[in-house]
Order: sequence, then structure tokens, then C-alpha cells
Amino acid sequence: MDCGIFGIYGHPEASKITYLGLYGLQHRGQESSGIVTSDGKRLYSHRQMGLVADIFNEDVLKKLPGHIAVGHNRYSTTGTSELKNAQPFVVEYSKGGLAVSHNGNLVNAHILREELETSGSIFQSSMDSEIIVHLIATSRAPTVLERIIVSLQRVRGAYSILFLTENSLIAARDPSGFRPLVMGTLRGSYVFASETCALDLIEAHYEREVEPGEIIVAAEGKLNSVKPFKEERRGHCIFEYVYFARPDSVVYGRNVNEVRKQLGRVLAREQPAPVDIIIPVPDSGVPAAIGYAGEAGLPFEMGLIRNHYVGRTFIEPEEGIRHFGVKIKLNPVRETLEGKRVVLIDDSIVRGTTSRKIVKMVRDAGAKEVHMRISSPPTTHSCFYGIDTPTREELIASSHTIEETRQFIGADTLGHLSLKGLLSVVGEAAPHFCAACFTGEYPVEIPLELRSPQLGLFDSSQNNGSSSP
Amino acid sequence: MDCGIFGIYGHPEASKITYLGLYGLQHRGQESSGIVTSDGKRLYSHRQMGLVADIFNEDVLKKLPGHIAVGHNRYSTTGTSELKNAQPFVVEYSKGGLAVSHNGNLVNAHILREELETSGSIFQSSMDSEIIVHLIATSRAPTVLERIIVSLQRVRGAYSILFLTENSLIAARDPSGFRPLVMGTLRGSYVFASETCALDLIEAHYEREVEPGEIIVAAEGKLNSVKPFKEERRGHCIFEYVYFARPDSVVYGRNVNEVRKQLGRVLAREQPAPVDIIIPVPDSGVPAAIGYAGEAGLPFEMGLIRNHYVGRTFIEPEEGIRHFGVKIKLNPVRETLEGKRVVLIDDSIVRGTTSRKIVKMVRDAGAKEVHMRISSPPTTHSCFYGIDTPTREELIASSHTIEETRQFIGADTLGHLSLKGLLSVVGEAAPHFCAACFTGEYPVEIPLELRSPQLGLFDSSQNNGSSSP
Amino acid sequence: MDCGIFGIYGHPEASKITYLGLYGLQHRGQESSGIVTSDGKRLYSHRQMGLVADIFNEDVLKKLPGHIAVGHNRYSTTGTSELKNAQPFVVEYSKGGLAVSHNGNLVNAHILREELETSGSIFQSSMDSEIIVHLIATSRAPTVLERIIVSLQRVRGAYSILFLTENSLIAARDPSGFRPLVMGTLRGSYVFASETCALDLIEAHYEREVEPGEIIVAAEGKLNSVKPFKEERRGHCIFEYVYFARPDSVVYGRNVNEVRKQLGRVLAREQPAPVDIIIPVPDSGVPAAIGYAGEAGLPFEMGLIRNHYVGRTFIEPEEGIRHFGVKIKLNPVRETLEGKRVVLIDDSIVRGTTSRKIVKMVRDAGAKEVHMRISSPPTTHSCFYGIDTPTREELIASSHTIEETRQFIGADTLGHLSLKGLLSVVGEAAPHFCAACFTGEYPVEIPLELRSPQLGLFDSSQNNGSSSP
Amino acid sequence: MDCGIFGIYGHPEASKITYLGLYGLQHRGQESSGIVTSDGKRLYSHRQMGLVADIFNEDVLKKLPGHIAVGHNRYSTTGTSELKNAQPFVVEYSKGGLAVSHNGNLVNAHILREELETSGSIFQSSMDSEIIVHLIATSRAPTVLERIIVSLQRVRGAYSILFLTENSLIAARDPSGFRPLVMGTLRGSYVFASETCALDLIEAHYEREVEPGEIIVAAEGKLNSVKPFKEERRGHCIFEYVYFARPDSVVYGRNVNEVRKQLGRVLAREQPAPVDIIIPVPDSGVPAAIGYAGEAGLPFEMGLIRNHYVGRTFIEPEEGIRHFGVKIKLNPVRETLEGKRVVLIDDSIVRGTTSRKIVKMVRDAGAKEVHMRISSPPTTHSCFYGIDTPTREELIASSHTIEETRQFIGADTLGHLSLKGLLSVVGEAAPHFCAACFTGEYPVEIPLELRSPQLGLFDSSQNNGSSSP
Repeated sequence: MDCGIFGIYGHPEASKITYLGLYGLQHRGQESSGIVTSDGKRLYSHRQMGLVADIFNEDVLKKLPGHIAVGHNRYSTTGTSELKNAQPFVVEYSKGGLAVSHNGNLVNAHILREELETSGSIFQSSMDSEIIVHLIATSRAPTVLERIIVSLQRVRGAYSILFLTENSLIAARDPSGFRPLVMGTLRGSYVFASETCALDLIEAHYEREVEPGEIIVAAEGKLNSVKPFKEERRGHCIFEYVYFARPDSVVYGRNVNEVRKQLGRVLAREQPAPVDIIIPVPDSGVPAAIGYAGEAGLPFEMGLIRNHYVGRTFIEPEEGIRHFGVKIKLNPVRETLEGKRVVLIDDSIVRGTTSRKIVKMVRDAGAKEVHMRISSPPTTHSCFYGIDTPTREELIASSHTIEETRQFIGADTLGHLSLKGLLSVVGEAAPHFCAACFTGEYPVEIPLELRSPQLGLFDSSQNNGSSSP
Repeated sequence: MDCGIFGIYGHPEASKITYLGLYGLQHRGQESSGIVTSDGKRLYSHRQMGLVADIFNEDVLKKLPGHIAVGHNRYSTTGTSELKNAQPFVVEYSKGGLAVSHNGNLVNAHILREELETSGSIFQSSMDSEIIVHLIATSRAPTVLERIIVSLQRVRGAYSILFLTENSLIAARDPSGFRPLVMGTLRGSYVFASETCALDLIEAHYEREVEPGEIIVAAEGKLNSVKPFKEERRGHCIFEYVYFARPDSVVYGRNVNEVRKQLGRVLAREQPAPVDIIIPVPDSGVPAAIGYAGEAGLPFEMGLIRNHYVGRTFIEPEEGIRHFGVKIKLNPVRETLEGKRVVLIDDSIVRGTTSRKIVKMVRDAGAKEVHMRISSPPTTHSCFYGIDTPTREELIASSHTIEETRQFIGADTLGHLSLKGLLSVVGEAAPHFCAACFTGEYPVEIPLELRSPQLGLFDSSQNNGSSSP
Repeated sequence: MDCGIFGIYGHPEASKITYLGLYGLQHRGQESSGIVTSDGKRLYSHRQMGLVADIFNEDVLKKLPGHIAVGHNRYSTTGTSELKNAQPFVVEYSKGGLAVSHNGNLVNAHILREELETSGSIFQSSMDSEIIVHLIATSRAPTVLERIIVSLQRVRGAYSILFLTENSLIAARDPSGFRPLVMGTLRGSYVFASETCALDLIEAHYEREVEPGEIIVAAEGKLNSVKPFKEERRGHCIFEYVYFARPDSVVYGRNVNEVRKQLGRVLAREQPAPVDIIIPVPDSGVPAAIGYAGEAGLPFEMGLIRNHYVGRTFIEPEEGIRHFGVKIKLNPVRETLEGKRVVLIDDSIVRGTTSRKIVKMVRDAGAKEVHMRISSPPTTHSCFYGIDTPTREELIASSHTIEETRQFIGADTLGHLSLKGLLSVVGEAAPHFCAACFTGEYPVEIPLELRSPQLGLFDSSQNNGSSSP
Repeated sequence: MDCGIFGIYGHPEASKITYLGLYGLQHRGQESSGIVTSDGKRLYSHRQMGLVADIFNEDVLKKLPGHIAVGHNRYSTTGTSELKNAQPFVVEYSKGGLAVSHNGNLVNAHILREELETSGSIFQSSMDSEIIVHLIATSRAPTVLERIIVSLQRVRGAYSILFLTENSLIAARDPSGFRPLVMGTLRGSYVFASETCALDLIEAHYEREVEPGEIIVAAEGKLNSVKPFKEERRGHCIFEYVYFARPDSVVYGRNVNEVRKQLGRVLAREQPAPVDIIIPVPDSGVPAAIGYAGEAGLPFEMGLIRNHYVGRTFIEPEEGIRHFGVKIKLNPVRETLEGKRVVLIDDSIVRGTTSRKIVKMVRDAGAKEVHMRISSPPTTHSCFYGIDTPTREELIASSHTIEETRQFIGADTLGHLSLKGLLSVVGEAAPHFCAACFTGEYPVEIPLELRSPQLGLFDSSQNNGSSSP
């Protein structure tokens, strides 16, 4: 699901700090990673397919000198896993070097790209981030900042974005504030990151979020903030709380672990079950399961063990293995499950196929009853702002009632957290959130071409790194 | 800590099944991995540094044809991380091809190696497994099985071992049964593995343990068992329960997750603490923490979040980062810990340095009190049977009282599970266990040269893959 | 020195034929190689640093399907040896895919690039071939051919160039015809190549040269030729005869081996020497030495043996080795040289440093007298059309008399072929040649910025692959 | 054809000098290369598939410290191109480290190997060099030198061999002196190499040959020579002169280029032809062609151009290309050959298939008559001493008369140098040569098993690097 971005201005070891920051954001993207630095004179770049810890070593980091850096982790989406789509995207244009780290999806990318190509722009990738770069390059505005402003005024959709030039770092967040972006300080340098867990690792001090519609320029040793966009409806992605962010992060001002435990508690009140034990689908279901168990006064148990050494693909024997795709990640603990009535806690159901396999596996391991509890409402709509949900047609909840879904996944009962329950946890901030994946109410309008993928205009490769849980 | 071994006889996709089996045993060794197969005529081999999922793909597995296979995961130990020490070890000798997958350490390796070299044997590696191979090659016995028997009769120490020849798979376990080894069946084929979690993944049926002192030969389509060794004192490694095995495995007949939870419960009774929450050091401390919390009636919380994308080394900035080695793996959740009195549950303390960092980190994150609870007795002695504990000098408990250790790690209180408590969990089987790391009572005598590493005779490179937590 | 280009239209194994064609043109560029194909629907591309035989194998060629292909070998020039400068250069733009293989240098590249960047074009490389691509992309002309025409009308300098689109192959040669480009046919398909030796290898039939100022379009199964440029002074590079082309090729209608032998014969008449044997500097000096020896009636001998296993760099011991750079390629045969008066034949002298080492080496091996004879006039001027001569300052003949050069290289006598002698060999065609490297008379005007490299405007990285002998 | 070996004792940059020496011996083996060094305490080793210039760089050489080194280039033979067969072969045994560089083939390898395996020796490779190492390891003699002596006394066949221990370099040559081995000095250090061209490159002074049956020990800063073998019939490989050695080398006391030219002169006298031009098959036919042309008073011409960028394999289009295997290396110069009566000079005919293709190619290029002249007698017998000739059955001359061979290769006439003519060139030394490939008279007896390959006892993989021209 979407990507992780990180930037730092004014640190003598900018690339080393960025590498650690990206490592802390690894959960936001595992397909490729990259860092671009500047020493004030020119840019240095390294991008590679794979994990942060495999890509960067002393040798690579030595070739990334300078005091300014931006980094990017890209999520693996099927089909477009190519180095040329790795970020940060870096170019030379008339004003010098420019690197971009982008998290989020634009909704008018296809229109702008066609326009730019007609005027002679040559695209190197299928990323919509490149559209922003071409808008900047073809702008006639005199300064880089002005060019960025006029370019961002033309795009619609979600972006938490970092620009690096020879002598500045510029952070921007779309007016709805779809994707998270925080700012910190580290011994006089300025740091930007998708989540606070990246700040923790490098011992940076968390200052505040970059505000929706805000552009912060770090240059000449100091910060400047501008807000050049007209107001838009707020739309913080609520799915960051439900699934995507790391539990130790503070997102939109609240700790994710605590939010998730609270979701579990409300879920326990809304959807109780007469069971013996509460089992999470690890790792994402753990905090909600702890909350559920606490509220219900029932034992929390690790009845499914996760294998963390997961590679990109696994080879199945020809005879086949039941639930292969799930079994490669999860194994039930028979002795813990046997003869028990179980509540199984997960964060969401997408296509239903994974849940179906897990329920079956838990039952095969001896559970007497399996009650599925989901710490979010049914996912009925696709996301166009950066979370890689499948098309609406593939979302089981878009065409099935809860009872039909229950039958499909084979659970004894199925209960979702209500939208009201979900929003009650975030409290007064509720109106500022985007819950379009549960409601279909999109804060920024989605063009018809994107909504109807059969028209072929929505190439998943334009997604800036996203995936479904 | 020690290694993972896997073998299969009589399956048309032997290498594919072995690859999955090794993936299921990845937690037992991440340094290198290898598979050797036989198609009845000759052996095929592939060994490589790295993780199972990275090493094996369709192309590699296609080059490993045949219906018999053995595999091996090697643990990373410092200094000898070289491909030539990867297993399975495979040679051509007078009787044909021979491959060996070995888990465990021999205690008379140095004497036998010197003897063999004096007679003209040329060693290719520093593994003591190679000693067994040379004993087999230089034996005058007429059959491979007889050669294996006379060779194993000469070695002393720990071995769960699999031999592959052109047309047989032979499993053996030392008379004390130090390291685990189980047998299963899969649609008419015979499977051997270090742990049952490997059987689960491939849907094999768990039959029984290979017994201490037993040799099982799979050849000509059937099994034969012999017990050619004189009885020895039993010495099942109790540390497999405490730390090493995967929670979903059945080891020595008992499920590990249930044993660990029970250790936590006894620990709660022996070492209660007036706190608000129970926090595990993830992942190994989780089951004991669940048990402790349940017994104490206190909330279980995930106050430390683990980053699972861990590489082999991490580069620290020159300015330094507090607790860097620990922080790269764990991050505290401030909102969960702040103002709380905390019991922190871990499985063991080795040098004390990691615990010290964790305690400090939890305190820095706002915990009011930190009470360390360890689900095993103090580790006072080195292991010579395959667990890679450091030398006695480096074990904090070998020279410090519990109070001194508490001061060193900076906890408010420190409490260990008692030996009696530990053994009470395994019940009547207690006399069959080796708890030498806690007691210094070694079931198979350790030569003086090994006990005194300063004599330089104990080269850690002779360790067949082990490490301490 | 400059590059090798190859293209084919209408062959079912287009990539395989192109790979062989590039192998036959390997002498024209050893830094990187690439092939782009089209199957009528989309383009497929593979570029890599290294030699043709190392880069392309069955697997790579399988991923390059289609019946149209272009290929390119790039010469190694210092400093800009990067994959992004490898060709064919391939982009997506408003009219679809476009790949370019270019041999030659533009002289107004810097002006056009600045213009394009100011209008918002983003460059991916430092090659001036990319300028042509951006001109095409930003053109408003309706068809690809018209866009190519208007774009080529704006550039000045040398280009033998092949364009590939989804359904066509377009060959063009600048109006002066600086660099060679020939056309052939192979079982109904059309082939274009820098030299005929590439046609020989694939058994294509040599048809004719692509004429200066001609554009040939292969599309819809047939050829079309247009000549949209105004006449320019002809300027066939005479250095192709002197050094660059392979002896078995027919260039500008004449066989290179025969031309070189004839150069040797005229040289023998102009610059006789009272010696015992005639020795070539292998391999380039061989044909002229054979001609010289034949004309002089003196024995031709291989007194210097060339090591053909040459890598990109060699490591010298700290103590140093005399003539290391030359010795790594050439070794004298003492028994052949000892006590002899020797004529040493080379094709040209650039900086003089290599000649100096060779003369010394031949003398050290026992030659009594060393008479240097060069089968071309003194090289006094840089080439701006694609041959990678150094700056004028570095050319020894630009600032030294022949006698001074003789002293510098340490020869007993030094004799060059005269310009008149050189042109006499090409006969009536002489006015059509560019001999600017010997005369300073440039057929297409060189802007002042290029002539004065100290101004820093002439970045050697804009060279499309070239080098000096 | 056989291998290149190099060693140096007492030089501070031993690995760098060895790398250059191996580069100078690259023509003797292109499959793999390796260097082992000693710093007086331990051995350091690097072996890799590929060419010297690709394998060794600053980083690799830095990891090969010490003042003693041995190196090896292995020839590519089909089927056994594996790293484990690369040399120098290096082991640890009871006396410490030992590395071996071997050129030549043993004729009793199979017997000794079986013997050693029966006694328990485990072999790592299929090289017969390893047999010598096991003989040394299992010897009971007290010193390394004595062990080497008793071991070499047991082997029969060809070996020019270098042993490296922690503190010595030992050179040995079999009593017949089959393969060349020379000694030189370089600023106080001692150098050994297969050919003098390796000494030239590093500026070492050529001292003398290592004599047949001589063992030279470089240790404790000085040289010692012993001759522990009983006299054998001399058998210097005459094929080194005919084809294998580099023309600039001095082999068996004579310069190869001069010998080859003389072979050409005698050939011209024995086998004249009424032709217009003399053409060599480059590169090996060049010196004999120069000699032939000089003696005959006819023009020497380069009518075939060799492509030196040859890779290991080439992919042919499905339609096929005539003479593909030859065309990939050689291209005729039509303008030079057209209408001419041609003598084509090659060094030998093995299977006849290559000659057939070349004759056809020259004729296709317009030659009116093609007269093949070979600068050696018909090759009728296999070599068992290190030159990789095919089995007798595959040698065309073993079963065809010269007239039959002429018809097969399609030449107008075919003439070989006579054995008498060949031996006349080496003069008085003639009785010291092995010409078994031309005569079937083997100086050291060949066991029946080797002579009859259909018995399957002669595994070509036991060849220490050899090939046919």
C-alpha cells in the first residue's frame, strides 16, 4: 500500500540518515528503494529493486555525499515492477537537477500526460510523479518554488511529496491531506517522513505534521512555509489507522497502536461472540485482538504463527498444497486451537479469498467454531488516492451482503466494526477523514475513466506504489 | 542457534518439497542454504549464501532432479561465513556420492581431525561434519550403512544427521538425543525434519521422533531402523523450548507455544510484580508474556514493535545512535508505555548488553518502572552441543549475581524462572533433558580443551551453525 | 572511434541477425551494445555495458521478438562510460515508441539542447542523439517522417542514423556523408550497416551506400527514398580508410585492405629507407606494411606480437614497468629484430607517446635502426564529426615539426605519407573526402565554442562514441 | 591446448606480477584463471571462470598478499567447465597449506585415483593434479620436498608443475620434459613460467629452462635443485612450435616465430605451388606463410581477416549461415582473393571440418585455385601428454590418405611438411622431441585403457586443460 518517503536538509551524513529512515519505513514499500543527495553543487543518485538493507551498504552510501537527501520505498504492484519506475525520480532540466519522492496517486494524471506528450514532452516512466516533473520543466515561472506551485495547482488527487534541488528540500502535501507526512528536527537539520517511526529510529524530534495544502521549503539554512492552494475538503486516509501505518507511529496526531486497540474494544462491544479465545491474524490484527480480548475479558492467544522470511514468490509442488498462498505465511498452532471456540481478528476483507483460506486452516487445526471479526467496515469501494485496493468488481463487499461473505469465507459468524464505531475512535477529527473505501464518498472527484477500469484508461502501473492488505 | 535439516525419500518432486521444508525451518539458520538430490544414478547439488526464498527458484530446482533429497539451513556465526562451510556437504569417494546435513556439534572433533589428517585425509572445510565423512571414506567396512555405524560410534557429542547416497536416505540421531529430529510421511514418501513446522507446510503427516541412538535407512522403497549404539544418558536440549524452536512446532512430543505459555505462568507465580502491563520482547518473548499476563490477570500489551526487514549489518551514523543495535530491530510505543509500571518478558539473558539497551529504551519511552522477567534460569554455562552460546567468560550470569545483573541491565527488579519451575513444565520427562547451560552438568563429557577456549583449540568455525539469542 | 550501427526490416529473426551484425561491427565500439526490436505493436529493448558476445545470449534474444530491429555498438570514451549513454536510445512520445542508433557528432548540439531545455524538454542522457529525439517529439509535423525531416534540417554535423518505430525502419545520412552507411538485402529483408563486413557475416547482399543527404524509409514491406536536404560539400571521412574501418569492408565503394596496401606502396615511393625488414604495428599497420614491403622489395616480418586478450584496464606493479601501456598489448620478437635496420609502419601518430614507447621497445629488442613510416599525413586538427581525436593542443603534429616529432619519438627517421599521396589513392573521388584532421579545412563549419575546449562548452560526453588510434 | 602456469618467489608484489604473467600466458588457457599467494604464514586464493583481465582487479589483488605466488590459466574443454576444476588447486593437509599449478596430463591417473579412493581419500575435482596432492598428503615422508619426490616418482606422464607452501615455491618438470617450463629472475626474486613471453611482460631476465626431471626449490631466500628421477627418453612437445606457443616466446631454447618461418620455408621447398599469392589462416598460420612467401618469392597477403572479439558461443539464426563456425572468426577479403590462385597456409588439420569451411569460403570469395599447405605432417595420433587432440577416430589423417583429405577439404592440392622437414628445422635437438601426434611413437607408454576411449576409462575431464587447434 502506497509508499514511504523521507527527506533531510542540513545534515552532514544526509544519505546515511535517509537510509535508516527508509529502513524504518520499509513496511510502506518493499519493491524498490532509492536515495538522491545533493552536496550543494550536483545530485547523486542510487535506486535499486529490493529491500533497503540489501541495497545500501558503506560503498553505495559513500557515493551519495552531501547534506540534503530524499529517499523513497516503492510498494510492489503486479506488472510494473521495473527499475525505471523506482523513485526518487531524478532529472536534469533547464533549472538544473531535480529529484522527486512521491506518495499518493493523482486522479487527472492521464489528461495531463496526454497534454504534455502532445506538446513534445518525452516520458521515461509510467509513474504519475513524472507528470509533476514535466509540468515543472515546461513552466515559464522564474523560480523553482513558483514552478512547483503552478504545477501542483494543476494536479488533482493525493500527494505527499518531497522535491530535492541542488540547494533545497521542498515538502508538499495536497490540500486534502490524504497521505501522512510529518516533520522533525535532528541536531539543527530538518527531517520529513511518512511516519514518525522513521524519526524514532534516527532519534529526530517530532515537530508536527506538514499541513494539508502546505509547502515547506528548506533552503539557505532555514524553513519557509507557504499555503498557495485553495481550501479543499480534508481527507486523511483512515486506512492508515486500520492497516497501513506501523503501530509505533503517530499518524494524524494519534498513536496507531492505541487507535487499533480501541478499534478492537469498540468491535468487542458491537460484535461480541461466545468464544474461548481471541486470535489475531498476525501481524496487522494483533493490536485490535488485544483490545477485543481486553474488552471481552477473554484470553488473547497467538494461534497463528507468521513466517517472516517471506520472499517475492514461492514455488508450489505440482500436486498442490491446500491454502498454499496463506500457508507460506501463516501456520496454525493445533494445540492452542484444538477444541476451542475462536474469534479471529483481522483488519479488513478485500477479495475474501485469503480470509476463506485462513478460516479453513484454523478449522482444520481443530477449532470448534470460528467467528471472524473485522476491525473496519466492509471495503466496498476502490481507493484512487494511493492505497492499492483492487477494482470494485473484485472487492467482495461491493457485491455481497455480510451474510454472503460469511458463507464465502466459511466462518460461523462474521462481524465488522461499524463506520460509526470506526469514526467514534478518531472522535472530533472524524469529518477530516477519507473513508471512501467504506462509503464511496470521494473527497476529490474521480473521473469516470478511472472508475470504469474496463475502459482501459486506468493503468495500474500509474499507481505510485500501493497494494491491498 | 544450530541448524535446520530436512530430507525426503521417494517423492517425485523431492527438491521442491525440500525447498519448502527448508523455508519452514528458516528460523534455525539464515546464513546459507543448500539442497542435494539423487535421481538414483547421481547426485545434484546447489548451495548458496542467503535465505531459502532468495536462493531457490524454478531454474535452480529444475537442476535438482530426483526422488531423494536432503537440505540444510546454516546459522550465521561470526568469522566463518563462507560458502565452503555451507551444507549439505557433498563428496565423491570410493563408494560413490555422499551428501550430509548435520545439526549439532561434536566434542571430539579436534582429536579425530588431527588423526585423519595425519593419515593423509585432505579437508575441504572447517565443519566437524566433514570428519564424519572422512571416517566413512576411510572405513574398511563393506556397506555404506556399516561404515556410517562405525564412524558414528567414534564421534561423541550432538548430531541429528541425514545422509544421502545415490539410492538411499539415512537419518541418525546421537544416543543422547541432543537435537530434535522428527519423521513424517507424505503420500508414500518418508520425510525427516528438525521440527514439525516443516511437516505442516508440506502437509506431511507427523509420525514420530527419530529416537536417540536410532539410525533409520530409507532405501529400496522401505524403512529400516537400527540402534547400534550403547545407551547414553538422555540430553534433549531444553533451550529448544525456551528459545530456539518455532512456537507452532511439536518438539520432544510437546507443542512449543503451549510449553512457553506455561513457562510464563509458572514465572508469574514465582516472580510476581506489582505492575500495570506485561510487555514481551518480541517475537521470542510473546508466548511467555501471554502466559504471565494470563496468570497474573494483567493486560498483555505490544509495547515494543519489531522491524522484520532486518539485514545482516546496519551502518550507523558517525554521531552514533543510542541503543543502535537494538533500535534497528525494536521500537517502543511511547503511548502504550508512558507512565506505566511494566513487566518486560524475555526468554534469556546472555551477555546482558541487549537487555540493558531494551530496559533503557523502554524507560526512555516513559515507563515508570521496568521489571525484567526471564522465562528461564540464569545462563551460566556454554553449550558444546550445537547452541552457539558465547564462552563462559562472556555469559553475565557466570560471574554476576542476579542482583549484580539487575544493576547492570538497569531494571527495577529482575526475576528468573527457577530450574525447578522450568523442569516442572516438562514434567516426568525432566530427567531426559540437558539443561547444562543452566547447571553446568554436561550429559556427554566436554574435553578440557573445549572448556578453556583460551587454549585456542576450540575454533568457533567448527560449530555447525549455532548462535545465542 | 565512432560507433557501429545496424538495422534490419522484415526478417523473422531480426534480433538474432542484428546481434551478428553488431558482432561484425565490434571494432567500431566496445563500451556498450544494445538492440531494440519491434513486432509491429511495441518495442523491446536491451542495452548493456560490454561486448556483443558477452551481452547477448539465447535468453536475451528471446526477449527481443519482432521483424524490425536496430542495434548499436558504442565506443569507449573516458569519463562518460554509463549505461544511460548506451544506444539505441529509446523513448515513448506522443506518436508512440522511437529508437535511435546514431554514428557521428553534431556541431550545433549545445545550442539546440539549451533551446529545448528552455522550452521544458527533460534530457535523460548527455548524448547529442537525444537532441534529435526531442526535436522530433516537439515537432508539430503530422507524420513521423516529416518530423524526422524537419528535425534533421535543424541539426548540423555528422550523422549516419537509424530510426525504428513500431512499424518502420528509417535510415538517414547527413548531406556531407561524413560517416559510412551501407544498405543490403537478405532474403527479402532490408539491412543497413556501418560497414559491409557486417553484411558478409549474415550473408546479406551488398546493394549500395545510403547516399549523403538521403533518407530511406522501410515500411509496409517496401522501401522509399527521399532527399529533403539542400546540397552540402561532401566530406567522407578519409580516416575510415587510414585506420577505423575493418580491412575486409568495402567503404565508400572501395575495399579497405586494398586501399591501405596502396597507401603503403605510395608511402614506400615517397619515403624509402635503407633497411633490412619492414615491421607493422599490428593490427592496423599490417596492410600498409605489406604494401610498403612489396613496393620496396624488402621482407615483411611480424616483429611485434599483439596480445588480443586486452581488458579495459591493467594494474601496474608499484616499481613500474617500462612502456607498460604499450607492452600490455605488444611484445617484440627479439630474434626477428636483433641487429636489423627496421622500417616500422603505423597508420597515424596522435600524441606521439605511444609511438615513442614502441620505437624504444623495438630498439631495446635489438633493432639497429628504427625508421618510422606513417601511412597518413601528420594529424594536426581535431575531428568534430565523430572520430575521437584529442584536442588540438594534445596532437603532437599541431605544434611540432616532423623533425621535432622524430626526436620526441626517438626514431632514426620519420616519414609521413603526403596529403597528395593519400588523395592520389582515392583518385577522382578525392574532392568528396573530409581530410580536416590533416588540413583543418572543415566541410561543415565548427562553432568557436567547440574549437576552444577551454571554454568548457565541449563536453566530451556529447561524443557519440569515438576514440583515437 | 594445455595450460599456462606461472610462479614467483620473493617479490613484495607477488600477486600483481603473477597476474601480469598469467595475462601474458592467456593464449594457453581462457576458461578459468587463479592465483594463490603466501605471506609466509597462510595461503590466499582466488579462482574464477573467465579471462585474466576480467578476473583480477585492484580489489582482488589486494586480498592476495604475500611474497610467493603461483597462478594458472586453464584451457576450455567441453563438458567439465566448472570452477572446481579451476587451478591452482589448494588444500589444507597435515603439513599445512599446499597449492598446485599443473600443466600436462598423467597417463596412470585412473589407476592411482582408484587406489587412493579405496584407501579413503576424498576427491574434490576431476583433475589428475589432485592425485598428486593426495599422494603427497598420504605420504609418510617427513618433509614436503620428500613427499613431493616420492609422489612424483609414482606418477607417469607429463607435468610441468609448481607447488606453493606457506614458505616455499617448488618447480618440477617430468623426466621427459614434455611441456615447457622456464626460469627467470626479477630484482632478486625467482620466476617460473610456461613461456618466456610472460617473463618479457614483467621485465624478468630469462635464465634457463627447468630441466627435464629437475625439481627446483625456492625457499629461505635461495634456490636448490635436485634430480631425483631416473633418466627417461626426452619428449619435448613439438606441437608447441607448430601451433601452441606464442611466436614471441623462446621455447626449448629457440624463438617460436623464427622456427615457424623456417617451417614455412622448408614447406615451400617441399610443397611448391604455381600461385599468385600466399594467404595465412590467421593468426597461427602467419609466420609460416611469411616464410613460405619469402622462400617462394611470392606476395604475402592478408586475405582472411580475423575477428578477435570472439566469445564462448554464438547463436546462429534458424535459417543457418554457411560456414557459421568459421565465419564468426574469419572473413575473406574478396578484392584481395578475386581471380587469384592462392596458397593457404595453416599449421595443422585435425578433423578437417574447419579446413573444409575455410577452403570453401576462400573459393566463394573468388579465388581461382586454392592450394592448402600445412606446416606440419598429418596428425594421425592423439596426444596423452596435455594437448587436447580428439580421439584417434576423429583425426581425419588417422583414416584418410592425403588425397582423400584433399578431396574432403575441397582444395585443389594439399601438401604437408614432412616429418623429416619438421625435424630438420629443430636440427640436432630432433631426438629430444615428442612427435607422437605425427608418428604414434609415445615416449612414455600409454595404457591400453587410454588408447581405447570406448572403454570409458579416459574421462576427458581429467585433462588438465587442453584443446585442439
